[in-house]
Formats: sequence, structure tokens, C-alpha cells
Amino acid sequence: MLVVMKKDSTPDDLKRVVRFIEDLGYRAHPIPGAERTAVGITGNSGSLDPTMFEVLPGVAQALPVTQPYKLVSREVKPEPTRIRVGSVEIGGGRFSVIAGPCAVESEAQILTIARLVKQAGGHLLRGGAFKPRTSPYSFQGLGEQALRWLARAREETGLPVVSEAVDEASLRLVEEHADIIQIGARNMQNFSLLRAAGRSGRPVLLKRGMSASLEDFLMSAEYLLSEGNYNVILCERGIRTFSQHSRFTLDLSVVPVVQKKSHLPIFVDPSHATGVRDRVAPMARAALAAGADGIMVEVHPAPDRALSDGPQALLPTQFEQLMAQLRALGSVLERRLEPVS
Amino acid sequence: MLVVMKKDSTPDDLKRVVRFIEDLGYRAHPIPGAERTAVGITGNSGSLDPTMFEVLPGVAQALPVTQPYKLVSREVKPEPTRIRVGSVEIGGGRFSVIAGPCAVESEAQILTIARLVKQAGGHLLRGGAFKPRTSPYSFQGLGEQALRWLARAREETGLPVVSEAVDEASLRLVEEHADIIQIGARNMQNFSLLRAAGRSGRPVLLKRGMSASLEDFLMSAEYLLSEGNYNVILCERGIRTFSQHSRFTLDLSVVPVVQKKSHLPIFVDPSHATGVRDRVAPMARAALAAGADGIMVEVHPAPDRALSDGPQALLPTQFEQLMAQLRALGSVLERRLEPVS
Amino acid sequence: MLVVMKKDSTPDDLKRVVRFIEDLGYRAHPIPGAERTAVGITGNSGSLDPTMFEVLPGVAQALPVTQPYKLVSREVKPEPTRIRVGSVEIGGGRFSVIAGPCAVESEAQILTIARLVKQAGGHLLRGGAFKPRTSPYSFQGLGEQALRWLARAREETGLPVVSEAVDEASLRLVEEHADIIQIGARNMQNFSLLRAAGRSGRPVLLKRGMSASLEDFLMSAEYLLSEGNYNVILCERGIRTFSQHSRFTLDLSVVPVVQKKSHLPIFVDPSHATGVRDRVAPMARAALAAGADGIMVEVHPAPDRALSDGPQALLPTQFEQLMAQLRALGSVLERRLEPVS
Amino acid sequence: MLVVMKKDSTPDDLKRVVRFIEDLGYRAHPIPGAERTAVGITGNSGSLDPTMFEVLPGVAQALPVTQPYKLVSREVKPEPTRIRVGSVEIGGGRFSVIAGPCAVESEAQILTIARLVKQAGGHLLRGGAFKPRTSPYSFQGLGEQALRWLARAREETGLPVVSEAVDEASLRLVEEHADIIQIGARNMQNFSLLRAAGRSGRPVLLKRGMSASLEDFLMSAEYLLSEGNYNVILCERGIRTFSQHSRFTLDLSVVPVVQKKSHLPIFVDPSHATGVRDRVAPMARAALAAGADGIMVEVHPAPDRALSDGPQALLPTQFEQLMAQLRALGSVLERRLEPVS
Repeated sequence: MLVVMKKDSTPDDLKRVVRFIEDLGYRAHPIPGAERTAVGITGNSGSLDPTMFEVLPGVAQALPVTQPYKLVSREVKPEPTRIRVGSVEIGGGRFSVIAGPCAVESEAQILTIARLVKQAGGHLLRGGAFKPRTSPYSFQGLGEQALRWLARAREETGLPVVSEAVDEASLRLVEEHADIIQIGARNMQNFSLLRAAGRSGRPVLLKRGMSASLEDFLMSAEYLLSEGNYNVILCERGIRTFSQHSRFTLDLSVVPVVQKKSHLPIFVDPSHATGVRDRVAPMARAALAAGADGIMVEVHPAPDRALSDGPQALLPTQFEQLMAQLRALGSVLERRLEPVS
Repeated sequence: MLVVMKKDSTPDDLKRVVRFIEDLGYRAHPIPGAERTAVGITGNSGSLDPTMFEVLPGVAQALPVTQPYKLVSREVKPEPTRIRVGSVEIGGGRFSVIAGPCAVESEAQILTIARLVKQAGGHLLRGGAFKPRTSPYSFQGLGEQALRWLARAREETGLPVVSEAVDEASLRLVEEHADIIQIGARNMQNFSLLRAAGRSGRPVLLKRGMSASLEDFLMSAEYLLSEGNYNVILCERGIRTFSQHSRFTLDLSVVPVVQKKSHLPIFVDPSHATGVRDRVAPMARAALAAGADGIMVEVHPAPDRALSDGPQALLPTQFEQLMAQLRALGSVLERRLEPVS
Repeated sequence: MLVVMKKDSTPDDLKRVVRFIEDLGYRAHPIPGAERTAVGITGNSGSLDPTMFEVLPGVAQALPVTQPYKLVSREVKPEPTRIRVGSVEIGGGRFSVIAGPCAVESEAQILTIARLVKQAGGHLLRGGAFKPRTSPYSFQGLGEQALRWLARAREETGLPVVSEAVDEASLRLVEEHADIIQIGARNMQNFSLLRAAGRSGRPVLLKRGMSASLEDFLMSAEYLLSEGNYNVILCERGIRTFSQHSRFTLDLSVVPVVQKKSHLPIFVDPSHATGVRDRVAPMARAALAAGADGIMVEVHPAPDRALSDGPQALLPTQFEQLMAQLRALGSVLERRLEPVS
Repeated sequence: MLVVMKKDSTPDDLKRVVRFIEDLGYRAHPIPGAERTAVGITGNSGSLDPTMFEVLPGVAQALPVTQPYKLVSREVKPEPTRIRVGSVEIGGGRFSVIAGPCAVESEAQILTIARLVKQAGGHLLRGGAFKPRTSPYSFQGLGEQALRWLARAREETGLPVVSEAVDEASLRLVEEHADIIQIGARNMQNFSLLRAAGRSGRPVLLKRGMSASLEDFLMSAEYLLSEGNYNVILCERGIRTFSQHSRFTLDLSVVPVVQKKSHLPIFVDPSHATGVRDRVAPMARAALAAGADGIMVEVHPAPDRALSDGPQALLPTQFEQLMAQLRALGSVLERRLEPVS
């Protein structure tokens, strides 16, 4: 159920509606819009009677939400969500590039890469501190130390930092040191982790699970919003199919569909999807051309010596070329890559 | 690396080998076998020199393990693993039936179902206390209260209890009240949860993720064994494919392949795979015929009123008929369903 | 639309109904049943008015068919289809085993295998004369010569012969020499070939395409029936999925679903699905346990020297053991494998 | 095996090499290149001894081809293939747009659409005369009459015509009336049809099967080249996956991989892949950005009344906008869309 307030409703009207919803035992989610404010209701087990809300002062109408996902839906919030992180704005006509190494390996490594990301025109810095690995015997990340180095790289370059949380303990640390919390594909349906991230004040970048339907994906985002965290970035990173010429099959056509169904920004990760360096730039360009709000790519100055996923990391010069191509494409397709003034 | 002890080696020889491995900074996993004991080594980043171990007293030989999974591999332990839970034995020529409701809904419900499972010849009782649900607005289980009711059902019927843990908090509770900890498909690569379950004294039933390759599946089991929990039951529950006539595609041919590659018992869950009641019995029979070590099925006396997954639950009479068919098939295929004497 | 005749309707009533349908420009398919005859109507582009038919003498009622497939549907023909080929009956409670080499390689080879199939209790002989191969440079079959050798093997053993047609020219030859025409997975949507096979007097064994949905599969069968060939055997042979531990993923749960939706017999081919010898017997047993009407398996006395698909062929002793297991299972599950008396 | 001629070898040297290969019972495929001529050998069952060829006059070296596909491989022909059809050139830095209705419905319809395709800057005209349809009761195309109308549209607009052949009879007709023969996804492994098309003088546009691996796809193209038809255009049109938000999953990352492995041009069909009009333009732009050599899209002035696949056809104004966007993107990414001068 979505309660839409009148344009001329007062803050007190809104408070009264929220209290009325909470008194019924449900949860109220005020959603300010350009034109008017709406209040999403969650927590009800059956359908609600709209007239119950429509008699309250300041209420224009109460609408049932037809999708199983509520708060992530365009029905509930027609305007695209914009997320401000430091000096960077995500969504709303911008194309943002998150770049960095798969894993943070040393202070020197992350500083070097941060500088080259900044210089090439990238907008945010990525770097894994906690790595979910298929094998218990593989390198699992440097943990909090890596997060401190990322923070230092942010101080020097001004790039906001994105890093993955894999459980509640790492979530606390990522929250403390980074700017955006990444939830990886393997944890897309780790609902306890989603709930914890939904209670965080940090924006969350949520990767699509490798066998998640679009509805599964949006429902996982709904977990985040239903806990009160509305700053969610979705990220397509390839699905599992029979097709073995690339590591995963990048399902790029999800981009226009997400944009139709949800107000949340949708990013694309061509590095994990393809798994091979020379396919990253074509798929990054394709993501922009398909209308994505940004990409997340891996860059490493010495990928042969990377502790994880070396073969998919772009070389610094490749990244610079890609950024130039993206700027040229962006100018043609009305996606801004230049910094926020 | 696998260090195989001589038949006539002494306990002191074994201790010395373990200490030697630990002094190198690795982890030693003694694996007693019918013929002789072996010691798996994990934690080494590169390959080790076998001669280093072969010179120690009591050592027959040191063998490299060719698979990425080590402790779950048949190379390391040729005999099939048998797991004893209460009076029930799993693996080793037995066919075990875990049955019960998707979710525990009330004390009366779980007691009624436990009695009928027992009476029909089922071996273990399942019942969800913590339910991972696609939607944040769906019923999420009754938590610890449900676990207490399950324990009471065990007291009355003698059936050991299987229940799912979804995070570390619920793992502690399941560990306390239930006999086997289930890790669900959506958490198959929740590596923090796997590690925690690997440190538990309870056997773990690990479900295959819906897009997990066989290697992914065995590597997740390896997380459990590498932490010291060798009592792991694998469970196929259907994979995501284009085929939409059933909820998931039951990948039954994984059964003989798992049995070739691993010593761990492999179960099949035909309820979640098909999602429709009248397909459960055919697939349960097929699981036995394919050589599985057991099945996990849902039973509910009033599935129309079930709080989750009603359409896939067998009716009590259907379950009784299925048990009779399984006993008949078992007698033909040398799989014992009768209780341990 | 399905026109159901009254129990006491006369042959003249039926003729009149057929003529009436044809005069409307549609096609009439009389379907005799145990209780009463029905007449399927195809060729209409929109929906028809039932009363138009219900006023005709001898007509009990006219029913719309709700599925996109008509003649293959259980709605149109509730009794399972039984197909008689020589002394063999397929469907209707029997479990039939089609066995033989992937490809006919020589007269001696096919005679040897036919004898062992016969002796072990198999019911029909398979052997490829025309092989659809992924590579233009692979062995493509011995053509008409192979068909002559198959016919000779039938003369000696009495086993009816199944062989694949890949185009209209080979269809003519298979029709002439063999008893059942196989249409392979790669030609499941070769609609010209389906139409030609639909006009043949020989039964057709139609394999499911490797990415065919159940509806696609039944619609391809509908092509055969709509041309007048009602003797169609469906055959599941594995689908393409991400799962790489077997060549294809055998989608065994399609068996009970086909049996619910269609009256046509459904077979399973575990050889092509798994691609590996030691998984064929488990999946063959599972097929019987799941309720399939038969299997198609490959047998070769010297698979190492086979010209195609050697690794998946059972050895003669393995085939004998499998037949013994299937007979034991059949006796438990009321599927008859003994010859028609 | 690939026999590479010396730069200064004579035509007589080449003839002698070809004759030598043919005398061995194999097939020789001379492949002229910018630098030098090579001769592909097919038809050998085992590997050949290079020295046998290297002693012949004019031969630089003889190289084994490591891929299962030979003639389609970049190893055999490093330069990208360019195909000239009328005044249109495909491949070699151009981006070509094939547009038109799913099916030709009337002379007026195809003339209207041909004019608008021409006017908007499209390069070739598509239109189905023979439609492979899942249901035997669906509209199957207007056959030869449709081909005549297509030919008339070509006369008026100068646009070369692409139309699908579904069997040998329709192939003869398409060959006679159209400029490029399309082989559809469902016939990608109809090897008899591929062989027949391989003997045609017309270029072939080969669509990827919906469950074809990249190797399957290239092997099907190899059937065409091995019969002597080197003018082959590959076309990605979406694969079958679990993901149901679009009709098929467009596997766009196949584009850079095909370009690495093969010299053949690779097109993308976003209409059949997505099945929904408003996702066609994003995926068409993404195809260009990913480096494809062209696209094939459906356009219809009144898609609601189209006899097949209406929902995926672009409206005329949408097509014009798309062409403008593609020209802008092409100018940035060095893909020429302007007509050949």
C-alpha cells in the first residue's frame, strides 16, 4: 500500500499518517518526491483497505502496490534515486566508474592504483578487504588493515571507497572505514546480512546473484529498503548459463528492465562477468550504451602478480583508454562523466 | 598432500606426524580408515615435498591430492563416510528418509507430523525454525520456540531433528536444540556461516546452491571439513535452468558423480526441486534408484493451510505409500531402510 | 476444439461430423477411445462456437482445448497411447528397452550387438545410419548400407529397429528399412522434417531438443500428430545447463509432467544425457522408478573402437546386469518388461 | 592443416599444391590474403605430416590448426572477412543495419517498410517468407509470393534482401529471389540444410542456436565454409537461460570472443533476444559499442496488427531515432554507417 500525500499537505499531516500506520502495527516509509511525498506501508500480511487512509487529513489517495517488491518499485517512487557519496553523485543522468584492484594487497599497491584511477577520471575506488572465495585455502583478504589503507587512499585522492562485507563483523568494519558497502553475488540472499546492511547509514552496492531472477534481485534490494536504507545501487555481474566462452554470461538487457521497474541506479561489472581482460572494455562500453548508471571494473598495474582474479584486471593504459572512450560515448548519449561541480 | 600411515604404525607415530605438520604452520587432519590412518594437510599455499614426510617413522607414503577439494575427496578417504545421529545411521548402504513440514507452525502441528513420520517408517524429522525467504514480508519462521517444539517431538518419537541455520545466531540455537544443522541452498557460499558450522560438533546437511557447479558444492563442503567437522551430508535440491515445468531442475545425475569423487553421503530433496506434490514421489523413487543415500521430503497434514511451501508437501497417506514403495525398491537395490538394530 | 461423440453414436454420425469440419476448411482428427470417440479440430485460426457442433446428431459436447497443443493433450485423449511395433507393445504399463550402438559400423557389429540385446531381454534395436555431427569432418554414418544391415539384424533376432532420419532423403530410407523413425534433438524444431515424418506410416521417436521447454517439445509432437501420425514416442535426453559434471543435465522430472499433460509415451535416453558409461545404469534405473515408459541406451562390445560416442556405451555385461535390475524394479513398480505373449 | 604459400609463389605453385592435396583424397580451400595465399586442408581423419607439403615448390610452411573449426578460424585467415552484397559492404570496420518486418504480409506492407528503412539509413531489408513456428497452427509465411514482393522492394529502394530458408525447397527459392540466405536459430544444427546452403553462391547469415556453445556455432559455420561458401555472417540472437525478464538472454560478450577466434563478421539481433520493443534500442546501441559488425532489427508501422512477433518490432519513429544514435556512436567508435561510395 502506498499513501500519497496532497501537494499542500503539512508536515503534521505526514506525521499523523506515519503514526496511524505504526499504531496499526505496520511500518511507515516516507518517500519524499519532487512533486509530493508518499508513504510506503510494509509489514502487513494481507491487503489493506485504502479508505482507512484516504480519510486522514492531507492524504490524496492510497494505492495498492501490484509488485511483490514495494519500496524499490517505480510505482512507489517514480523519480530515479540519486545517491551522494562525498563529492560524487550516482544516478540521475550520471555515469560513474568504480575502479580498483580485486583485493587490496599493500598500502603501496592501493595508493598507486587510486592515483591512476583518479588521474584517468574514475569516480570511486574499489578494493577487497574481505574476499569470499570458493576454496577455503585461497587468499581471503587482508581485513581491517586493507580498509585502513583504502581510507588513506581516499584521503589522498578524494575518491570515495567501495568495499565488500561478507558477514556482520566485516560489515561493522566496512561501515567504519569505507563509503559504500558492497554485498557480493554469493551473499545476495544472505538475508541476515541484508538486514544488517539495511540498518546501516552507508549506501549499499548490491550485486545480483549468479542465478537470481530479476524479481529475486529486486526482493533482496527490498530487504535493504525495508530496514530503512534507501541508498541502494544494483549491480549486474553475469549469470550462470551453459555458455562457457566467458566466466559468466553478462545479462546486459537487465539494465533497461530494471530502469523500468525500479527507481534504483543499476551498475554493471564487466570484469567478473567476462573474467578476461580484453573483453572488459567492449562490455563496459556496451553497459554505457545500454543505459547503465555506471560500471565497476578491476584495474591492476601488475595483474600477473595479483593475489586474486589477475586475468580480468585492466592494465593502467587500458583503463585510461576505456575512460576516454566512455567520455566520448557519454557525450553522445547524454551521460555525464565529468566531476560534480 | 595426504600422508598415509603404515598399517603397523603406532599412535605415537601419528602424533609425531601431526606435530611435524603443525610446526610447519599447516593444519593436520587425521582420517582413520578401515585399513590404515591417513593425515590430510591443509593450509599450505604451494605444493609440498613428499620426502619431507616419508622419512618420518610410521609413514608409508605422502601423496599429492590432485583435486582442488582435499578432505572431501575419495583420494583422501576411500571408504564412504557413515554418520551416526542418535539411533540412526546415515550412509554405508542405508537409505534414510528425513521428513517433516517446511516450517514448524505450532507444537501440535510438529507433534502430529512427527508421529506420522515415525509411524510410516521415516528416520529423521525436519522442520524449519528460521526460514530464508525471498521477500522480507514473508513468514520467516518461529525461531527458538520452534526449536523447542522440535526437541519435544524428538523426545516423544525418538526421531533425530534436522533444522536450518541462517546466520551465526541461529546456528548457536540450532546446535543447542537440533541434531543436524542444515545449511540451505542460498547460504551454500556464505563462507562465514560455513566456517562457524565447521566448528560445530553437530553433523551438517549442506544443500547445493541453485547455480553451484559440482566443484563449488564440494568446495563448500571442504570449508566444513577444513574446520574439523567431518560429518557432512550433501543434498541435491535442484538447479536453476531455462526449464520451467518444475520450480528447479533436479540434477539427479550428480548422485553417481558425487559418489565417485567424494566419500560423503549424498541426499536428494525432491520437494523443493519440483515444487509440486504429485512429482515428489516419482523423484524420491528415482533418487533411491540412482543410488542416493537418502531423501528429504516435506509432509503436512493440511498443506492448504501451511505457512510456507504448501503445494509441495506430501499428504500423510502419500507419504505412507511412498515409504512402502521405497522399502520395496530398497530390498531390490540393496539399500536398507529398516531401523538400526 | 474437441468434439466428443455420444456413446451410442453411429459411424455415420462420426462421418457427418468429420465432413462438417472439413467443409468449414478445418482438419478433423477422429480419436477413438475406450469409452467413446472424440474428434479433434485443427486448422482454425480463432476460437470456434461449440454450439455449431453440438447440434449435430451423435455429438455429446464440444469442448475448447485450453492448451496450445491439442492432439497431444490428455484433454483430447485421456487414455495413454499404446504403440504396437512388430511383436512389441510400447506404453500402457510396459517398460521397453531400446538398445544398440550409437552408429552401425559393420554387418558383423550390428548382428553381434542385436544378439546380445535380444539375449539380455531388450525389446528394440537402435543403430545410427545417418549421424548428425557437430563437425563436418566427423564420421557421418554409413547410410543406406547400415539400414540394410539393421534390417538383417531384425530378421535374425525379431527385434524391431529404430534409426534416425536427418532430412527428407534419409527419412524415405529409414521409413523403408526401419520400424521406428527417430528425430534427433538437433532436429526437434526442423518443422519441415517433422511434417514429413507426420505423413509417414511409421511410429516416430521424437527427442527433446537440448533447450526445448516442455511446451516446445509437445508442440513439436503436435506437428507430427497434426499431419496424421498419432504413433509418437517422446524421449528426454538431457538439457543444456551450466552444470558441467555431465554432458547434459537429464531432466527426469519431465516424466511425470509429460504423463499428466499428454497421452504419449515418454522415454529417457541416459546415454546421451550423461555421456559417461558408469552413470548410465543409475539414470536408467531412475527413469524406470520415475515412471518412464522405456529407455534408449547405447551398448557396444568394444566401445574404445566405436566410431562415435564410445565413452557412453555400456559394455555387454553391464547391459545384462542393467536388464536384470530393471526387471527386478519393474516387478516392484508394476512395469512389465517381459515379452508380449 | 594450413599450407601457407610464399609471397613470391606463382599461380602454378598454388595449383600444384591444390592438386597434391586432392590426390591425397582431401579437400583444398585456397584462402587469398592481403599478404599471401594459404590453403586449408579438410577431410583428413588424422593429423598430417607438415613436411609432406613443405617440400612442394612455393610453400612457406605447413601449420596444424589447433581448433576443431578450421576454415572459420583466425589462424587460417587473419584478416576479417568483408562481404559485398550489391552496393553494401559488410565487415571491415562497417556497421550494417538489416531491418524490416518479421514476416512479409503484403506487397504494400513490405514496400512501405522498405522505404522507411532506406530513408532512415538502413542498409539491408529483412522479411520472412518462410517462418519456422513453434506451433503447427501458427502463420507460417507467404512463401514465394513474399519473396517476389521483397525483390520488388529491392528494385525500388536498392536495399539488398535477407530472407530465411527452412529446408531445401525454400532454400532454392530464397537463393533465387533474395541476396542473403538466413539460416535460423532452430536450424543451426540442421546439417543437411547447412550443406545445401554451403553449396549456394549467396552469402549466408547464420543465427546462433538458442543453446549453442560458441564452438557449436563456429562448427556450424564450418559446415558452410567446408562446402565452399566463404561468405558467412554470424548472428547472436539470445540464448536460453533461467532468466525470464526477457525472451532470451542476449549473450553480447560473444562478440569480442568471436572476433578473436574467427575472421567472420558477427551481427546481433536484439529484437528476437529481448522480445520487447523498448529494450531493442538499448541492446542495439550496446551491440555497436561492444564492437559488432551490424544488427538485425524488426520494424513495423502497425505492430499491433503484425502476423508474428509484433511486440518486438520498432515503430518507424523509434527506428529513425535508433539510426541517428547509431550514427553518432559509430562516429565515436570508428564504425562507419554511411553508404559505400
